[in-house]
Amino acid sequence: MKRGQQLEVIDLEGEQVADLYCVALDDRAERLSSGRTIDYNDTIYQTKGHLLYSNRSRPLLEIVHDTVGRHDFLLTPCSLEMFHVVTGSKQHHPSCYDNLTNSFREFGFAGDDIGSTFNIFMNVEIGPEGKLTIKAPRSKPGDSITFLAKEDLIVGLTACSDEQTNNGTLKPIGYRIIE
Amino acid sequence: MKRGQQLEVIDLEGEQVADLYCVALDDRAERLSSGRTIDYNDTIYQTKGHLLYSNRSRPLLEIVHDTVGRHDFLLTPCSLEMFHVVTGSKQHHPSCYDNLTNSFREFGFAGDDIGSTFNIFMNVEIGPEGKLTIKAPRSKPGDSITFLAKEDLIVGLTACSDEQTNNGTLKPIGYRIIE
Repeated sequence: MKRGQQLEVIDLEGEQVADLYCVALDDRAERLSSGRTIDYNDTIYQTKGHLLYSNRSRPLLEIVHDTVGRHDFLLTPCSLEMFHVVTGSKQHHPSCYDNLTNSFREFGFAGDDIGSTFNIFMNVEIGPEGKLTIKAPRSKPGDSITFLAKEDLIVGLTACSDEQTNNGTLKPIGYRIIE
Repeated sequence: MKRGQQLEVIDLEGEQVADLYCVALDDRAERLSSGRTIDYNDTIYQTKGHLLYSNRSRPLLEIVHDTVGRHDFLLTPCSLEMFHVVTGSKQHHPSCYDNLTNSFREFGFAGDDIGSTFNIFMNVEIGPEGKLTIKAPRSKPGDSITFLAKEDLIVGLTACSDEQTNNGTLKPIGYRIIE
């Protein structure tokens, strides 16, 4: 994405999650930082008006439109290792991490450097003692969120492969770039 | 730290915070991951019995003793940029990020790669709508937490420079390695 462009992500069928990660085009060591974003916005739930910051504290994206208001920024993308740790299974499973890594590779960006993704429409609630519960997304068909690029960016986006996040129904995700 | 060694961190005077980050000795691209740890433990508050995972899902540390039970793993270490963003000031301020970066540099590990630190004794509460509140640490003089190294590690530890985390009273932090 070029600075000034907007990315609209649309939940076409409802209750689907899409993981987003991005790095600066001019220096790929500068990348999306969940920890700095949560710190500066003083909230774990980012929505319209919030900036998403890099590990160097520069705003990379601004949320300019959001019909849902519930997204996760605490968790890393689902990965083969995650399925193994969580389920105990050793079988192959598609994952957001593999999708992002395979797409970022041609831009010289390694999987080790993918931190916590901005997990669009993912509905994670925190109990009083800090316990996490992954609930069905609040998004209905046609719901959307729009990000304004504050810098030139390489952006990775993937529909989520984890049945746990999307109420057991794997579905596509829509997006478009607005010039 | 060598695998099998333990690191005890002691709050000598009470209400002080210490930021910890670590990477694998044999491959410094493998490093502490807040997002994977929170995911696998299903809680934002890590305490005795919890493993702290790497970005490759290997356990790097295990919390084997903890007299406080309230630590933060959501936020990046305080940094000069954080003080500028949060306070609007452009003045210099010491920071955990600078302390960690300066110490990691000799091990060939860059500041860009420091993600969310494990912020020992830092007391961050989450309101019902996701809002963060930084409260005084629950730790009293002599309180401690002990980590068991599950791999050979390079570990950075710093007393916190942010008056907001330690009830306005900057203090030293104690530690010892148990063979």
